[in-house]
Amino acid sequence: MEKKNITVAGAGLVGSLLSIYLAKKGHDVTIYERRPDMRKADISAGKSINLALSDRGWKALAGAGIGDEIKEVAIPMHKRVMHAVDGTLTDQAYGNEGQAIYSVSRGGLNALLMDLAEKHGVKVNFDKRCTSINMDEAIASFKDYNTGEKETVNSDLILGADGAFSAVRNTMQRTDRFNYSQEYIKHGYKELNIPPNADGTHKLERNALHIWPRGEFMLIALPNMDGSFTCTLFFPFEGKDSFSTIKTEEDVLAFFNKTFPDAVPLMPTLVEDYFGNPTSSLVIIRCFPWAHQDKVCLVGDASHAIVPFYGQGMNSGFEDCTIFGEMMDKYGDDWTTLLDEFQKERKPNTDAIADLAMRNFVEMRDLTADPTFLLQKKIEKRFSNKYPDKWLPLYSMVTFSHIPYAEAHAEGKRQDKIMEEVMAMPNIADKWDSQEVEDKMLSLL
Amino acid sequence: MEKKNITVAGAGLVGSLLSIYLAKKGHDVTIYERRPDMRKADISAGKSINLALSDRGWKALAGAGIGDEIKEVAIPMHKRVMHAVDGTLTDQAYGNEGQAIYSVSRGGLNALLMDLAEKHGVKVNFDKRCTSINMDEAIASFKDYNTGEKETVNSDLILGADGAFSAVRNTMQRTDRFNYSQEYIKHGYKELNIPPNADGTHKLERNALHIWPRGEFMLIALPNMDGSFTCTLFFPFEGKDSFSTIKTEEDVLAFFNKTFPDAVPLMPTLVEDYFGNPTSSLVIIRCFPWAHQDKVCLVGDASHAIVPFYGQGMNSGFEDCTIFGEMMDKYGDDWTTLLDEFQKERKPNTDAIADLAMRNFVEMRDLTADPTFLLQKKIEKRFSNKYPDKWLPLYSMVTFSHIPYAEAHAEGKRQDKIMEEVMAMPNIADKWDSQEVEDKMLSLL
Repeated sequence: MEKKNITVAGAGLVGSLLSIYLAKKGHDVTIYERRPDMRKADISAGKSINLALSDRGWKALAGAGIGDEIKEVAIPMHKRVMHAVDGTLTDQAYGNEGQAIYSVSRGGLNALLMDLAEKHGVKVNFDKRCTSINMDEAIASFKDYNTGEKETVNSDLILGADGAFSAVRNTMQRTDRFNYSQEYIKHGYKELNIPPNADGTHKLERNALHIWPRGEFMLIALPNMDGSFTCTLFFPFEGKDSFSTIKTEEDVLAFFNKTFPDAVPLMPTLVEDYFGNPTSSLVIIRCFPWAHQDKVCLVGDASHAIVPFYGQGMNSGFEDCTIFGEMMDKYGDDWTTLLDEFQKERKPNTDAIADLAMRNFVEMRDLTADPTFLLQKKIEKRFSNKYPDKWLPLYSMVTFSHIPYAEAHAEGKRQDKIMEEVMAMPNIADKWDSQEVEDKMLSLL
Repeated sequence: MEKKNITVAGAGLVGSLLSIYLAKKGHDVTIYERRPDMRKADISAGKSINLALSDRGWKALAGAGIGDEIKEVAIPMHKRVMHAVDGTLTDQAYGNEGQAIYSVSRGGLNALLMDLAEKHGVKVNFDKRCTSINMDEAIASFKDYNTGEKETVNSDLILGADGAFSAVRNTMQRTDRFNYSQEYIKHGYKELNIPPNADGTHKLERNALHIWPRGEFMLIALPNMDGSFTCTLFFPFEGKDSFSTIKTEEDVLAFFNKTFPDAVPLMPTLVEDYFGNPTSSLVIIRCFPWAHQDKVCLVGDASHAIVPFYGQGMNSGFEDCTIFGEMMDKYGDDWTTLLDEFQKERKPNTDAIADLAMRNFVEMRDLTADPTFLLQKKIEKRFSNKYPDKWLPLYSMVTFSHIPYAEAHAEGKRQDKIMEEVMAMPNIADKWDSQEVEDKMLSLL
């Protein structure tokens, strides 16, 4: 195989992991990153959104031979714990015994991936802002934030792993017949914090994702290794209860005491965090094509940024790396075909997870507080355990399988229709685990 | 009213007309245009797409007091003439007696609007490319194409009338929570030409829009004042019959002789035009918000570029000017409210015409060759003539009325449902003008 000179824009999660895949194939890889080296400076700035690693992410990490190191700093979350206003807790397991999604810190994971990339010979340059791309020639220009110096980089291939606000994609956007959309949702988010107990233990059940579902909005909390939880309030920008109406210290306390009463005593810095941390927006990015000849290709958020409500943003970006690896095995030196097959394979799947993630927002913030919804999930789970080859719940297909997202989405729609009929059966709450319900489902399959 | 210093980006149709509206209100208006002065150099470059002025456009021109001058260089088209492969011609009137859409040359109309703007005291600068906008301060920077000189312009308000590839919008796209999409359709277009007869007369019926509907694609021809027709081939980029498969002189002649046999003898420069003129793409632009405080606002294609198939691209941009004028009357010096009300009023209507224009492409290229479709239109017209207050056909609402596009779209959907039932009546072709059909429609209303 011919050794390529590859420029990767962005040293984020996907850029770093993909660089390891490329370096392991023997290519010369250089990363240019806009920000300073996060391993030397804290740049999270109160907008981390904790990450939930699931099977697609683990597979991609394993493909680069680095799963074990990361599992050591990941906390398994086996279930959702829903917090009602009156303090009642309800559990909902994510999957079967032993299945879990894993809470990891974005910063920690990213630093580890950068270290590993460098170990594999990848060169990482920081503080380099991409100022322009010559797509036909694969020439990228960068400007150094500190020195102001400009640099022109010639390579065989440029991979744009530079995130939702990708500079590489910006250049593509100006080319003829490039489809593109950026869609901001009505909700934003704010990071808050639950510190550890004095003895370093967690103030809430550790191996769970905690949700305070409240219809139009929600609070969630994910555990950290240091005993704290990182909380995120997902909240509309405008409207009755929204960032635009909760403005003073009194507003914050009154709103949280009324809406999340059991969380308030756990959050001693609630007011400081609310006003100190930024209010961030949430964007969905879609575009096509991702590839230009054998010269340029987008990966990760640069081509398919999604909302975080299915915990699949990072996992889908990591799955890009898995598929990119498979395409390298399959197409060898034919990079034009490789990049084209990569984009054709990934586009329908990343579109599907974008839709699923938006749909899961409604499930998390509203339906998880709905007994009918929880009953439906219980029926599905019972049936799936009995007939695992006939029924895999949508959440499991997305989270604990490698079924392409688009197939999972289609199968999920089929299941929805069946469950609509099942839930309409008289007295379903009483006979949910009966033979009659089971037979009905078998007949509808 | 307070006199404002207003910078308009773009001296196209909408920028020039809006400047007249602003100047007539007493504001100081300066236009910066990227291209050279079209009145001194021919810059159409074989991609004009003839324009069809209809009632919304005429109203906006009348509002600026300039309708009469333009009517003198406009050719009324009272009907569509469909050309079948066997040469059969079928007429379809656009509206009632006396109603027409008007063929005008983009270049001629634009030059006239620029002249009129200058007469009203508007200053027009050419060859000035907008390089950046400071939105909070309404400062625009331009670079002169000829001298390379940079210029910074301070004003009270910047209006971005700089088209589908708007530089003003590009700046807005980088701001938080700006929704944006650019969507290219699968078809492109190519300009062709039918010259006049030796005596200066038209080779086809003059007062008509000619269509060669062929299912997946079509050819159209609009009359010019000099006896020629400007033809446009709307054709897929990829696929069996497409720009990608018609590549040689032989391909062109074989395809046109087979598909548009009656047009070929009228087009002596067919092959030269096909290879000499560019293949252009068609884009739909959507975005929101259009306005930033009282400092910046987008108008025309910059905020809502659509496909040309309803003949409403220019008309909807001109209607922006009508509504902008109404908002100036209503809100006086309160520019923040004025711009906000303008965008809230226009956004749903321009979204509606974007959808209608795409839908009309199918009608033009496919349905106009379908006898059932033509029958349906005949039934609607008969009913509308008898009950004009109960039924105005969708085409007439869009073209010959000032009903907001969104209302027309909704009413059109209601009519569709009714006509579905009417067309399903047994033997409808025989009794289309019967009392029974009329009663049925009355009962369904």
